[in-house]
Amino acid sequence: MEFINIIDYIGTFAFAISGIRLAAAKNFDWFGAYVVGFVTAVGGGTLRDLMLDVTPFWMEHVSYLVITGLALVFVLIFRKYVVRLDNTFFIFDAVGIALFTVVGVEKSIAAGFPMWVNVIMGTITGAAGGMFRDIFINEVPLIFRKDIYAMACLAGGFVYYLCIWAGLSVVATQVTAAVSVILIRVLSVHFHISLPALKSIDQTAGEAKQE
Amino acid sequence: MEFINIIDYIGTFAFAISGIRLAAAKNFDWFGAYVVGFVTAVGGGTLRDLMLDVTPFWMEHVSYLVITGLALVFVLIFRKYVVRLDNTFFIFDAVGIALFTVVGVEKSIAAGFPMWVNVIMGTITGAAGGMFRDIFINEVPLIFRKDIYAMACLAGGFVYYLCIWAGLSVVATQVTAAVSVILIRVLSVHFHISLPALKSIDQTAGEAKQE
Amino acid sequence: MEFINIIDYIGTFAFAISGIRLAAAKNFDWFGAYVVGFVTAVGGGTLRDLMLDVTPFWMEHVSYLVITGLALVFVLIFRKYVVRLDNTFFIFDAVGIALFTVVGVEKSIAAGFPMWVNVIMGTITGAAGGMFRDIFINEVPLIFRKDIYAMACLAGGFVYYLCIWAGLSVVATQVTAAVSVILIRVLSVHFHISLPALKSIDQTAGEAKQE
Repeated sequence: MEFINIIDYIGTFAFAISGIRLAAAKNFDWFGAYVVGFVTAVGGGTLRDLMLDVTPFWMEHVSYLVITGLALVFVLIFRKYVVRLDNTFFIFDAVGIALFTVVGVEKSIAAGFPMWVNVIMGTITGAAGGMFRDIFINEVPLIFRKDIYAMACLAGGFVYYLCIWAGLSVVATQVTAAVSVILIRVLSVHFHISLPALKSIDQTAGEAKQE
Repeated sequence: MEFINIIDYIGTFAFAISGIRLAAAKNFDWFGAYVVGFVTAVGGGTLRDLMLDVTPFWMEHVSYLVITGLALVFVLIFRKYVVRLDNTFFIFDAVGIALFTVVGVEKSIAAGFPMWVNVIMGTITGAAGGMFRDIFINEVPLIFRKDIYAMACLAGGFVYYLCIWAGLSVVATQVTAAVSVILIRVLSVHFHISLPALKSIDQTAGEAKQE
Repeated sequence: MEFINIIDYIGTFAFAISGIRLAAAKNFDWFGAYVVGFVTAVGGGTLRDLMLDVTPFWMEHVSYLVITGLALVFVLIFRKYVVRLDNTFFIFDAVGIALFTVVGVEKSIAAGFPMWVNVIMGTITGAAGGMFRDIFINEVPLIFRKDIYAMACLAGGFVYYLCIWAGLSVVATQVTAAVSVILIRVLSVHFHISLPALKSIDQTAGEAKQE
């Protein structure tokens, strides 16, 4: 359990940092930045837990509040170094969504839902926090427009089930699914792979009229 | 049950199309468009189910995910025809909110709530999905500014209770309530009827000072 | 109970007025203004109740719907006087968040959660409604940028526990906590005290590069 906890905390820290940074760009006060950091870190898991009808996970351990506080202190003290640490945070973040995805899938399994619900719950756990963050700072959610992000979580959920079907042990399944999420996330950013954007319908309609 | 299911699917399809089109206007990627379409279709019912403390309906049947997928494929393939089908989608949408309203009222009755809660749950089921859609694409929710939309759901909820009080059978009540929603929606758009807008208070205050 | 109810209704009225005014500034129609007023008044308590897994409080008494309706009628009829009553509404609002905070803390205690969860639930009850309001009208939430607002709720929650630890009676604890919230809120506005804003990281990074 201890190793999992450390990864969980690292992921939470990276998520909180990302929320606090974007809040800072909007000149939020300390409290606002803390809230945005916290929502980024725990928002996905909270939505999952509300839909699974279990107590939101962060209400059972004070650690998520504390880690978000540490992230805020970190940004306040080391602000000049935060940007230089971009690559480190990117890796932390990728490890975080990988773990969050696996945790989300397993919590949904434990609640007795079918496979496709579990995969969605894994994706929500990994990706919805960033969506809430963007709604709070009044921006169009980034995960709808940029990079492979939620898709990495979704793929990780399917890999989880592939491993189960293939008869792998629970630990091997967890590791394989998490590594898939990290690889997809890192490779898609490295090679600038992204999903195609939808063209505006009205624009297309305009073209249609010109034909 | 089968006829209800078909209407349910048609409504879901129309709602998903509306979300995907607005996501396309913001150049969301395919995944983002899918999520916005899905949230438009199931967001209202999900909020209702969370407040009634029952499992969100879409977690019990995979059909809503599949229909949203079909809506995305439809927009991708037939984009040039989507605008020409505007009137068709408008009718689908009106039928959808009518059915969603009736389903919402009845699910709330089944959960044991009083009349006024049931009417609100019907309205949330019919109208909140469009509200979430607009929050996701970072626009001021349309249903707060334009047309008779949520008011049609609200009226349908009251008609439902009028029919019950008048001693109509369940089926007659459902049909009358649904038809009321559709009529109010269609007629209000056709005759450009909308609720009066509130004037800005500050503006009024300015006028008051000039007096 | 009656005195508490009157304060509860006054707070709800003040919250609803604040939502309706901001909706008016965006030219929402009557229905939209009503919804924004209602969400401002009950949104915080609803989020709390969903996370505590109890029925949202406003679904058990029709009074919150009625009071929001009265607030809308008040704004429509007395719009020219609303701005002149700004100071009155500010006091109503401060009394409202104070009561909401105490109610939120106690509802969370009743649900069996530890102290730090209860303090957060009190803060959410007092402050999250205004956050939802700002998301609905598509603005960056004010409570993240201006004044001591949520911090007053947070402090009130801690004062509540200080009083319990000091052995005060329940009523003395409630009054002391509520008065703390009101004092902090009023004094911070009067003396223009606010939390420091976070500087944008990128801006700081720019400075770092120039060194």
